[in-house]
Amino acid sequence: MGGPRVSYVTLGVADLERSRAFYEAWGWTPAQVDEGIVFYQANGVVVALFGLGALAADQGRPDADLGVGGMTLAQNYPTEAEVDAVFEEALKAGATPLKTPEQVFWGGYSGYVADPDGHVWELAMNPFSPPAADGSVVLGG
Amino acid sequence: MGGPRVSYVTLGVADLERSRAFYEAWGWTPAQVDEGIVFYQANGVVVALFGLGALAADQGRPDADLGVGGMTLAQNYPTEAEVDAVFEEALKAGATPLKTPEQVFWGGYSGYVADPDGHVWELAMNPFSPPAADGSVVLGG
Repeated sequence: MGGPRVSYVTLGVADLERSRAFYEAWGWTPAQVDEGIVFYQANGVVVALFGLGALAADQGRPDADLGVGGMTLAQNYPTEAEVDAVFEEALKAGATPLKTPEQVFWGGYSGYVADPDGHVWELAMNPFSPPAADGSVVLGG
Repeated sequence: MGGPRVSYVTLGVADLERSRAFYEAWGWTPAQVDEGIVFYQANGVVVALFGLGALAADQGRPDADLGVGGMTLAQNYPTEAEVDAVFEEALKAGATPLKTPEQVFWGGYSGYVADPDGHVWELAMNPFSPPAADGSVVLGG
């Protein structure tokens, strides 16, 4: 069921306003701004700026020091069942579970695993932005 | 000229065979395998596995300890001139230059900058896989 896909790229940042100012200065315009998080629409991929501490907490390890490279790659699926299935496939493949998929405060369903090097993948269902068949996400689409 | 786009996601790995085995076990099939690097085709985004040391060297800092999260996001453009322009825009926005764009051994043209948190962006022209207008790359396309 799983396979290569990147729906979101989240950059954990120390100072959201500083980072937003940097990307704005580089010519980026946010597609969506919520409390504590800024979204940019790329080519079928959404890039988000999110606090480092908040990102660590969202991964189920609030005390982790993510450091430079605290970056999460999300694979989004249309249903909770698919999230569960791909999560299980990941564990069978040897992934380290960080957070078992669960319903989350923003209305979706999300879990986290780490690959052998500690690269973090979020497996998620977001009812407000369902992915296209190829895993692409288009905000407001 | 620049803007949000993600063409490649490169995961720096300690053991390429171990990582390739993990992703294969998770159901991923490589789209292309070269010496020291494995490519997967995602939704308009290519995910690559590449040695941590090789990735540090490619960023122009061979002695860097990238650690967990040693991940590069590439923005690909059709011409060297566009790479240069976006590189300059990044510096003007406050990016830290890691490697001034230059012709590289694989036949393309590439430079690196870091954002305020140290997240690394490669700005590149690859004549063998020119990006679509939205920055998407399709291997062999």
